[in-house]
Amino acid sequence: MEKEKNHTAVLLIHCPDKRGIVASVTDFLHKNNGNIIHLDQHVDKDNNVFFMRVEWELGGFNIPVQEIMKYFQYSIGTSYNMHAELRLTEKKMRAAIFVSKLSHCLYDLLSRFVSEEWKIEIPVIISNHTVLESVAKLYGIDFYHVPVDTSNKLLQEQKELELLKKYDIDFVVLARYMQVLSGDLIKSFAKPVINIHHSFLPAFPGAKPYHSAFERGVKLIGATAHYVTTELDAGPIIEQDVARVTHKHSVQDLIRKGKDVEKMVLARAIWHHVNHMTLVYKNKTIVFT
Amino acid sequence: MEKEKNHTAVLLIHCPDKRGIVASVTDFLHKNNGNIIHLDQHVDKDNNVFFMRVEWELGGFNIPVQEIMKYFQYSIGTSYNMHAELRLTEKKMRAAIFVSKLSHCLYDLLSRFVSEEWKIEIPVIISNHTVLESVAKLYGIDFYHVPVDTSNKLLQEQKELELLKKYDIDFVVLARYMQVLSGDLIKSFAKPVINIHHSFLPAFPGAKPYHSAFERGVKLIGATAHYVTTELDAGPIIEQDVARVTHKHSVQDLIRKGKDVEKMVLARAIWHHVNHMTLVYKNKTIVFT
Amino acid sequence: MEKEKNHTAVLLIHCPDKRGIVASVTDFLHKNNGNIIHLDQHVDKDNNVFFMRVEWELGGFNIPVQEIMKYFQYSIGTSYNMHAELRLTEKKMRAAIFVSKLSHCLYDLLSRFVSEEWKIEIPVIISNHTVLESVAKLYGIDFYHVPVDTSNKLLQEQKELELLKKYDIDFVVLARYMQVLSGDLIKSFAKPVINIHHSFLPAFPGAKPYHSAFERGVKLIGATAHYVTTELDAGPIIEQDVARVTHKHSVQDLIRKGKDVEKMVLARAIWHHVNHMTLVYKNKTIVFT
Amino acid sequence: MEKEKNHTAVLLIHCPDKRGIVASVTDFLHKNNGNIIHLDQHVDKDNNVFFMRVEWELGGFNIPVQEIMKYFQYSIGTSYNMHAELRLTEKKMRAAIFVSKLSHCLYDLLSRFVSEEWKIEIPVIISNHTVLESVAKLYGIDFYHVPVDTSNKLLQEQKELELLKKYDIDFVVLARYMQVLSGDLIKSFAKPVINIHHSFLPAFPGAKPYHSAFERGVKLIGATAHYVTTELDAGPIIEQDVARVTHKHSVQDLIRKGKDVEKMVLARAIWHHVNHMTLVYKNKTIVFT
Repeated sequence: MEKEKNHTAVLLIHCPDKRGIVASVTDFLHKNNGNIIHLDQHVDKDNNVFFMRVEWELGGFNIPVQEIMKYFQYSIGTSYNMHAELRLTEKKMRAAIFVSKLSHCLYDLLSRFVSEEWKIEIPVIISNHTVLESVAKLYGIDFYHVPVDTSNKLLQEQKELELLKKYDIDFVVLARYMQVLSGDLIKSFAKPVINIHHSFLPAFPGAKPYHSAFERGVKLIGATAHYVTTELDAGPIIEQDVARVTHKHSVQDLIRKGKDVEKMVLARAIWHHVNHMTLVYKNKTIVFT
Repeated sequence: MEKEKNHTAVLLIHCPDKRGIVASVTDFLHKNNGNIIHLDQHVDKDNNVFFMRVEWELGGFNIPVQEIMKYFQYSIGTSYNMHAELRLTEKKMRAAIFVSKLSHCLYDLLSRFVSEEWKIEIPVIISNHTVLESVAKLYGIDFYHVPVDTSNKLLQEQKELELLKKYDIDFVVLARYMQVLSGDLIKSFAKPVINIHHSFLPAFPGAKPYHSAFERGVKLIGATAHYVTTELDAGPIIEQDVARVTHKHSVQDLIRKGKDVEKMVLARAIWHHVNHMTLVYKNKTIVFT
Repeated sequence: MEKEKNHTAVLLIHCPDKRGIVASVTDFLHKNNGNIIHLDQHVDKDNNVFFMRVEWELGGFNIPVQEIMKYFQYSIGTSYNMHAELRLTEKKMRAAIFVSKLSHCLYDLLSRFVSEEWKIEIPVIISNHTVLESVAKLYGIDFYHVPVDTSNKLLQEQKELELLKKYDIDFVVLARYMQVLSGDLIKSFAKPVINIHHSFLPAFPGAKPYHSAFERGVKLIGATAHYVTTELDAGPIIEQDVARVTHKHSVQDLIRKGKDVEKMVLARAIWHHVNHMTLVYKNKTIVFT
Repeated sequence: MEKEKNHTAVLLIHCPDKRGIVASVTDFLHKNNGNIIHLDQHVDKDNNVFFMRVEWELGGFNIPVQEIMKYFQYSIGTSYNMHAELRLTEKKMRAAIFVSKLSHCLYDLLSRFVSEEWKIEIPVIISNHTVLESVAKLYGIDFYHVPVDTSNKLLQEQKELELLKKYDIDFVVLARYMQVLSGDLIKSFAKPVINIHHSFLPAFPGAKPYHSAFERGVKLIGATAHYVTTELDAGPIIEQDVARVTHKHSVQDLIRKGKDVEKMVLARAIWHHVNHMTLVYKNKTIVFT
């Protein structure tokens, strides 16, 4: 669904299902001279919840950007008891990347950033090690070494929060960051954190999943990108994929092959996130592709 | 998107893209008390064409089924220059299966039919050989041997057309039928014909694709389900898939592994077709999944 | 690796790794005028175990079939402390299929059997329900209704064992059989039992995996074929595969899409088993493809 | 099959199939005190050709490296009419990368190189444009701008050949290099050239395959890594893969999604090549995985 996306707005909506929602929303946009580019909706019958993503051109739209949400809530939102979020595609999202020692995801993200495959900003990289400082330098990105351990976690996370604030970060990517963020950090930041876990969740949560996969003798290994919640490896899944392995593959082979799955899965999840295609409801991610 | 689908209607629409189409269609349904179950739309920006599939519950809908299209065209269709098709999910579609000697697709289709995985009717099987007559008998389905060859094609296809008419067939499935249907038959039948081709089209059209794939040394083999047009293996693609092969696989292995890909691809294409999820425009198939 | 396979023998070997094993085995075959068709070996470096599958033509081989193992153990096996198994491809393996109410795997297996895609015998179908008796009758296969429940398990499994013996069964396929076999049955039968589990193990073991997958919001569903051990869903994995799902899919959709994955995964596992391509070591399956 | 690979040797062999080859080769290695790490063989029954890859430890091997081929040919090679190649895994292979303007494959290859995921050398990057010079500089790799066009091709390719010689290059990677190498260059270089083509060959050879794929309405796009021959896009295929696309994807989307397939397929092909797992015979690539 790629194409000139400048100057469009996206509404991400969920509410109790009811007759007439699509008609009301599209009528609202139409009457205010908004040209719909994409519209996707979904009804979860079991839970009776309505979900919608609608994107329209801002050029010619009658309502000024800063007034859209107010008018929308007056006209429609309140009466349907909607949870609605407005996103403007013109603004580049700002990501902070957290890494430890492994470089494959970082390199992949940076190459997409510098080649402008992704329209985002990556102003800062934070790590509990110094190993990847040189990569940050290479690409002229600010790097901070914040050596977290069990004794200093509270203090160090405070520093991280300040950095996220200072750099005006919209979302965090944990690119094989080997520390668990505390519930406090997640709540204080209060914006999305995307993690890549190196297994096909819910199989093999926690540490050393490739070793566990090897022990179990699985025939496919996987990776899972998910939004981070306070429960480890249990947040809403954005994207997953797998790769075939055989008895010939050692643990080292699984790790090597897994790296490729991880970086692809993480990249696709970020793509969906920065293009405002994801909507989290309870513990699931609706991905409007 | 499966769930109680009885008593719903589906509109499949395409027209030149314009502002307000979604609002108009959903408003029409809403005002006539139709509860939308699914709505999916797509705009082909390059060709400026709007596509839409909308499904709503007939229970409580104000307009009688036989009047829907008339009212829809009055209210909306004509002004937008729409091509619109109405489908009623209550009615079971009736398929005729054409086969030659290979049984794998036939067995798979019949097992889905008899186990009611598919809500369709298969009243007749037609073949240019008698090899699979016993399979038809096994499942109590009428079987006709229509031995087509170059000398008698015109006459035999006339018989086939009569059978399709007699059995009130909605669509034909060529389940590894090794004859090319004439343009005359396709035009006279004037309803969808779905073919499974045993390669990843447009690679290896025509006869013996597995032999060609073996010769070329490809690392994946594939299958393609498409609507049949007068041009051989060039009709709108509904579904494709592939399977990995290696140097260890002989032509016989490719044929064996290919059978599984063929039957899965054909089954998924038929599923989409009978659930009114496909819309053909020019030489492409929009599949609203 | 398909091709005229009649009159070949297969040796499946494992032993502590040591220099010269391949040379010894191939030399033994060569000296006795055996033409090697396939040879595959693997060394598990971590555990220092050597694995091998070698297939050779029996035509012209100097040692009579019934003497091969004796000579082999004298010449080589004993000195390398080998575990070796001889298989003759001429003999068709005899499978018993256990089913409950779901028919998709059964239909798929039977269609491969009757169309001779598989060179096996399926003399008997056993079920704890009578729902699928008609399918057995359709294909002329003996059917036994053995209604197992918690109160009569011991007795009923005794009947099953007698049937397996009576029909001279080489391996059992649990084709979505909804009962757990007791450890006693598994031990008494003492031959391979292949199960298809409807999840990507070790994720979602036990009952209702599609419901769990739906709740967790995974983006891929899977199926796992494994040899049955006394521990539920924990036996050596033979084959696994996955299918992509989205938020649009209900539990019913997962079940429907899962059926296709299950029948393909089970079929590939059986193919490998009946072609003597599998070797179980500890809790893993080496699959020589 | 990854693990400590230093100080091993690999023999890649093909010859007319005959009894006793495996026994002879393994006996030769065994008698000279070589410990076999991997052995894989394959017989193409249709063409009666035997293929083999055997890898053994050099530590303790009785024959000095520079004499191995001579002794091997005396003892075995000549009598079986073998084509045999010896590779030493200790030596890092030296690659030259040719690029034009697209950076995704280049970034991916370089990240694997600098992170030592691959044990190779990349001493030089050659381009017909200057766009990616900065990337080369970033990684401290020599860069040469060799602006080839139809008028100067002969002269410029002469320069390229000199560079390949000067840098002692073992193989060339065309990482989305938009020029066709002349038959003269290919013959004069006389070493492997690996190209990544942005389609699932043989579908869509030549220029603009994504546009053609879009026009045809395929449901999967692909990429193909192959050894370059004098015939365009027709060389022996090393690796292929595909990605699913829908009607929602524009040509730009196909290009974006295709980039990920391209870089993964190219990376896997290079991995197989530098680990001496590929053997070209006629127009096919045996990949011993």
